Amino acid sequence: MGKRQVNPSEKQELKRSVCPVSCVLDILGDKWTLLVVRDMFMGKKTYGELQKSPEKIPTNILAERLKRLEQSGVIEKSQYQERPVRYAYTLTEKGRGLAPVLTAIMSWGNQYVPGTYPADKFKPMFTRQMTAQRSAGVKNK
Amino acid sequence: MGKRQVNPSEKQELKRSVCPVSCVLDILGDKWTLLVVRDMFMGKKTYGELQKSPEKIPTNILAERLKRLEQSGVIEKSQYQERPVRYAYTLTEKGRGLAPVLTAIMSWGNQYVPGTYPADKFKPMFTRQMTAQRSAGVKNK
Repeated sequence: MGKRQVNPSEKQELKRSVCPVSCVLDILGDKWTLLVVRDMFMGKKTYGELQKSPEKIPTNILAERLKRLEQSGVIEKSQYQERPVRYAYTLTEKGRGLAPVLTAIMSWGNQYVPGTYPADKFKPMFTRQMTAQRSAGVKNK
Repeated sequence: MGKRQVNPSEKQELKRSVCPVSCVLDILGDKWTLLVVRDMFMGKKTYGELQKSPEKIPTNILAERLKRLEQSGVIEKSQYQERPVRYAYTLTEKGRGLAPVLTAIMSWGNQYVPGTYPADKFKPMFTRQMTAQRSAGVKNK
């Protein structure tokens, strides 16, 4: 694949090593970040929607993760309402590029962690959302 | 895929939800666990070898992660020396099943995180190790 232009607003954090696994974990390696990304693949866009997931993400963690994901160039924020000010969050191209990571994780979970919900049932929604986001962007942007 | 027999020693932790992404992050969602798994794919087997990676994993974190990975059925421990007692760690079938997760992460890292080491250069070692582990098991077991 060709070289990608780096958005100057993307925060270049100190890397632990040049290993791609380590560098990715510097961005996504925790219990919550990929759940926020998952929800955005599912079509959630607002803070309120993202807060309503079954894992009950604490509000301070959600705010911090959204900020970090934006700084890493995985998501972008756009204002959709003025009074009060409200933002919508969507995956960037870099964020949508995480689809193969999430599907690999879901497959492993389904195969090795008993009692997980079958990924096949929400993979179509996942793919639909990716296509929709690619063509339409955020509503009311 | 068929149902897999659950090793009774595998710890069944409280799930945050039945979402496979969430359940996998309950096991692997942090900055270190997948680096230990990566190193074991690369052929590292002992505590000493696992400690020598460029990310400089703190010794207490390594010990805790090895314990947790064993409890989750991702790795297994076998004694290879008596005095002093020394253990070798290897990936189980469940652990080797993480290959697609790691390769998806490496591809995303190479594409979107500037300056990461090309995964292509260590993917062959990765595959070789998987094949070797499948057929041979731990040396001196």
